[in-house]
Amino acid sequence: MEIIQNPEAIEDKSMNIIEEEVADLECSDQEKKIVKRVIHATADFDFKDLIIISEDAVEAGLQALESGSNIVTDVNMLRAGINDRKLGSFGGELKCFISNDDVAKEAKEKGITRSMMSMRRAAKNPDNKIFAIGNAPTALFELMKLIKAGKADPELIIGTPVGFVGAKESKAELEKMDLPFITVRGRKGGSSVAASITNALLYMK
Amino acid sequence: MEIIQNPEAIEDKSMNIIEEEVADLECSDQEKKIVKRVIHATADFDFKDLIIISEDAVEAGLQALESGSNIVTDVNMLRAGINDRKLGSFGGELKCFISNDDVAKEAKEKGITRSMMSMRRAAKNPDNKIFAIGNAPTALFELMKLIKAGKADPELIIGTPVGFVGAKESKAELEKMDLPFITVRGRKGGSSVAASITNALLYMK
Repeated sequence: MEIIQNPEAIEDKSMNIIEEEVADLECSDQEKKIVKRVIHATADFDFKDLIIISEDAVEAGLQALESGSNIVTDVNMLRAGINDRKLGSFGGELKCFISNDDVAKEAKEKGITRSMMSMRRAAKNPDNKIFAIGNAPTALFELMKLIKAGKADPELIIGTPVGFVGAKESKAELEKMDLPFITVRGRKGGSSVAASITNALLYMK
Repeated sequence: MEIIQNPEAIEDKSMNIIEEEVADLECSDQEKKIVKRVIHATADFDFKDLIIISEDAVEAGLQALESGSNIVTDVNMLRAGINDRKLGSFGGELKCFISNDDVAKEAKEKGITRSMMSMRRAAKNPDNKIFAIGNAPTALFELMKLIKAGKADPELIIGTPVGFVGAKESKAELEKMDLPFITVRGRKGGSSVAASITNALLYMK
């Protein structure tokens, strides 16, 4: 068996296989790139029908990146999956507050989760315009609550919490928000999905 | 809508939902814990029938952990998904060499991928007894080649590369190896899957 070793050649061949399966998707080329990268990272074609991209999401995301926005993630695993060199080339940084000692301390004092507290922390910096939440429904719920209270004003939310308790509900609520978002219907999602969506945007620039 | 905020309560409720769906699985309780944690992280019940655990894998993994083994990962995203505090309590460390400058340099000199070079580097330390490879088929192929050449001797391989080029083939070859392994048949896999399997083992201790 011949093993293809060149990472670019592997990715090109993979994307060609995926392209055949999603050729009939009715969306823009940019939106299709997002769907393809998620399928590339999961080998799960269900995402073809589950990913929902609001009309203005790609443009809003690209504009935010161009202006040097940071990207906030809910967990460190998602942060590790995003191309930080590419983000840095636009002037932005990856931010994740979940493991900060002071976030843990304040969360305990207030009786909320660290995920929630890390969203409150992130909302304070106006350079944090893109939020990627791949795991914790409580983080996504908290961010939407902050927005409704006028305490957060992100330009794009990539919200793909995964799981059986609260994930689906948090994403259904995100779909009702009047702001740019990219999400996944149902229970599926996770760090790999959120990272792929974010990287797809980064690679468009 | 009531939002469950307590992370432990969310996990317990999730695991109860998953338990109902996998109740008929014919395997040990420990093996079932691995399957459930993967489904918990992906919300994808396909994994119920795709995860293959060699007869001796759980015991070998637990023994390696107990002896203070490090865990080597192919990519940083997977490293970030494994509970390092728990691993540290047994005396082990997480190791990932893919981003090391000298690994990149040596890979270039030898004309191989950084993934492959990082496996060669990892194989040199006998305390690296557990390998978790969630993404790069070339890393898994290289590790198996090192084993066959007598240059690596891991006690457990968690091998779940994902994708369309080489992933399925690398895992099929892993199933033929005469050593403890945990894998996923077909194209699916990835960092979230490999992290869940590894954490399931860590949480058994």
